[in-house]
Amino acid sequence: MRFDQRHLLGIEPLRPDEITTVLDLADRYAAHGRRREKHGAALAGLTQINMFFENSTRTQASFELAGKRLGADVMNMSMQASSIKKGETLIDTAMTLNAMHPDLLVVRHPHSGAVDLLAQKVNCAVLNAGDGRHEHPTQALLDALTIRRAKGRLHRLNIAICGDIAHSRVARSNILLLGKMENRIRLVGPATLMPAGIADFGVEVYDDMRKGLEGVDVVMMLRLQKERMDGGFIPSEREYFYRYGLDAEKLACAAPDAIVMHPGPMNRGVEIDGTIADDINRSVIQDQVEMGVAVRMAAMDLLARNLRAHPKEVMA
Amino acid sequence: MRFDQRHLLGIEPLRPDEITTVLDLADRYAAHGRRREKHGAALAGLTQINMFFENSTRTQASFELAGKRLGADVMNMSMQASSIKKGETLIDTAMTLNAMHPDLLVVRHPHSGAVDLLAQKVNCAVLNAGDGRHEHPTQALLDALTIRRAKGRLHRLNIAICGDIAHSRVARSNILLLGKMENRIRLVGPATLMPAGIADFGVEVYDDMRKGLEGVDVVMMLRLQKERMDGGFIPSEREYFYRYGLDAEKLACAAPDAIVMHPGPMNRGVEIDGTIADDINRSVIQDQVEMGVAVRMAAMDLLARNLRAHPKEVMA
Amino acid sequence: MRFDQRHLLGIEPLRPDEITTVLDLADRYAAHGRRREKHGAALAGLTQINMFFENSTRTQASFELAGKRLGADVMNMSMQASSIKKGETLIDTAMTLNAMHPDLLVVRHPHSGAVDLLAQKVNCAVLNAGDGRHEHPTQALLDALTIRRAKGRLHRLNIAICGDIAHSRVARSNILLLGKMENRIRLVGPATLMPAGIADFGVEVYDDMRKGLEGVDVVMMLRLQKERMDGGFIPSEREYFYRYGLDAEKLACAAPDAIVMHPGPMNRGVEIDGTIADDINRSVIQDQVEMGVAVRMAAMDLLARNLRAHPKEVMA
Repeated sequence: MRFDQRHLLGIEPLRPDEITTVLDLADRYAAHGRRREKHGAALAGLTQINMFFENSTRTQASFELAGKRLGADVMNMSMQASSIKKGETLIDTAMTLNAMHPDLLVVRHPHSGAVDLLAQKVNCAVLNAGDGRHEHPTQALLDALTIRRAKGRLHRLNIAICGDIAHSRVARSNILLLGKMENRIRLVGPATLMPAGIADFGVEVYDDMRKGLEGVDVVMMLRLQKERMDGGFIPSEREYFYRYGLDAEKLACAAPDAIVMHPGPMNRGVEIDGTIADDINRSVIQDQVEMGVAVRMAAMDLLARNLRAHPKEVMA
Repeated sequence: MRFDQRHLLGIEPLRPDEITTVLDLADRYAAHGRRREKHGAALAGLTQINMFFENSTRTQASFELAGKRLGADVMNMSMQASSIKKGETLIDTAMTLNAMHPDLLVVRHPHSGAVDLLAQKVNCAVLNAGDGRHEHPTQALLDALTIRRAKGRLHRLNIAICGDIAHSRVARSNILLLGKMENRIRLVGPATLMPAGIADFGVEVYDDMRKGLEGVDVVMMLRLQKERMDGGFIPSEREYFYRYGLDAEKLACAAPDAIVMHPGPMNRGVEIDGTIADDINRSVIQDQVEMGVAVRMAAMDLLARNLRAHPKEVMA
Repeated sequence: MRFDQRHLLGIEPLRPDEITTVLDLADRYAAHGRRREKHGAALAGLTQINMFFENSTRTQASFELAGKRLGADVMNMSMQASSIKKGETLIDTAMTLNAMHPDLLVVRHPHSGAVDLLAQKVNCAVLNAGDGRHEHPTQALLDALTIRRAKGRLHRLNIAICGDIAHSRVARSNILLLGKMENRIRLVGPATLMPAGIADFGVEVYDDMRKGLEGVDVVMMLRLQKERMDGGFIPSEREYFYRYGLDAEKLACAAPDAIVMHPGPMNRGVEIDGTIADDINRSVIQDQVEMGVAVRMAAMDLLARNLRAHPKEVMA
């Protein structure tokens, strides 16, 4: 079992065996369920700071619970209300927090690459909780764990990722992770929502959803950013649902035991039919949330171990 | 000592002996004062999530302190800033939190019945911290404990509830609780602020405050929702204070040892004269706040015991 | 070692030996670094409430971390979203919190004197985290500790405080503290940013920054409140930087081993050149932040000891 990272900035730098290490540990935490005494106190005495420059109920709550279940002191910084407004730079804010000696810094930022930049300046472990259109590594890890538990394996699966691929860091991190684990990935959506240069990722692209779902083991829906609707990208919610919303009829194209995933929050009736979302025989959407806490516990535990083994010198 | 509830959604479903059970335990917690070591750690290892869809400094703080004093991990969700804004439904938000395995979910919501609905969907214990005009059970319990401590009993008292009854969940929960405990309840206020069908509650209604207060043991003032002023319901702050504001002269109609209560926050000079509010011989307003923490500790402790005795199966 | 205060409301009431007591204890906490187990649990079982009526990322975070590192239960009250909006008075809000039995109340308020007023009404220990233009005692203490560690002593130093003195509680508390410890203080800035009656403080005033910095051991920059620019006080950011911004050329007037301080958040290129701020041979700006946590741990520890030794009777 090895995990040789100082930070968790993205899926890109991870080796397949490191991914497996995170998932295996998360699986053990998930098995403990809600019973905290079984979790141990891997983060006792450590300080975790959540620095969210974008609002996020579920991701921030998931990181906060993960930290508290392992005994960390968790502090949430509401960065909208912060010194940033007073003209301070991102790096000065980070340096300030760093001088307070946190051990784990969880960061979400609207700009791609902002979290990497920040990680170079601090001497604690940094976890990327989503940066622009770049990466959202814990989301890809929790999706992977959910798939592995539902399908019994995480390789040689046919997986369709559907919807607004172009703007999605969730899609990007998932494509990287699922590719490293040797699955076959299909991207399904209108050409206007496909990223440029997508061919380089070794994926198949479909604009016909029925063809895209044919025989797949996993249907991974993405949230439609409503604010991008009617702006030239896509015609209307109704039209979108007709062509790319997941309903029983389109799902029937997938393998009979295909699972349905969604990172949330869902727009029912836009990218997914409510009945499908609630069908406990197909939908693993609640499992994704549950695995989210477990994966974040595992990631923070592994980073804290590395921090203890190789502490960086504290700056002046 | 029995308390057979899975949730605390309102006063309506509680038996008198269950109410007494909560108050007795709260009394013991109150006796410990601020000394945490005496409280034990009834909620150690449990996760409490406060989900407030309406702002509330005092109620949220009271629940947070109650949980922390008993050793819970407490997480506050700012629901204004949440996924709700992104179009997610209340139930999806609740299901998401539920999948993170909280043990106690404290919910305030502007719609009557929203908390009951939510409780049907989750497998943790739900506490109603106020839903629309429906119920606010911990407020009624803390009022009851305050009365019992001040008057030595909680039955056969004459209690006047004064002001904006129609819009008040505090009034509604208090009428239910004080009725179950066999007290005589008078409602005092202008006819425009009385709820329809009030006669069915077995209460007496007065629009003359002096007559309403005659000989009562307890004067319970309600907060006037200023935003409803000048809108046809009531003429003006000044006129309201003249007719329904509690001052020394009106209070003289009550029993000589009558106590004065207010759930806060107060509008001094509108529904209550500042001098009365601060008179430590009559006002028990600070006691109400103190009993609030004790009652919430007791309620969460009892619900957690039931949760441990009869855990629901965790959903897939 | 003595510290005879019930509250920490300002530097003004402190004796020099009390200041030394705080700094000595803070020094020990700083020496422990991030290792919580060495800190002990001086605040275990105590409740700390942070009541910030003005936003402040760094000060609130510093107090929160300080409390958590010593084992306190810390609760943040977002006072913008509070009952204050519903028309409640500051004193009623304070009395309400007081009735919940906090042990430590950390308050920031835009009005000078508001924190003193509040301290008279409650029976817990109150720490002033900044009130109007009045005092910001923990900032002065952390500055003093930073100076003492960098220069080896806290007396007979030449210290220049530069910039917007008139509007700055940081400047005021620093002038008081550094004066009590027998240092020579120079104030540097345009006459429009000097407070009235400044001569009474026993300081020297300079409007020529080069002359003001001549031979000083410490250069303490203040944040320029940008919202006061172009309003008659000062001409423009560019002009301000030219005359009063700290750059290499002006710093060359100070002693060769002079240190550079700033309370943050910084306006790079307005009151300070970015290169100077980042020069680890001169700038102790990150140390100030680090000492901030240590000083707040020490202050709360000492106040909690006094609270235990002489508990006030809890009010009815």
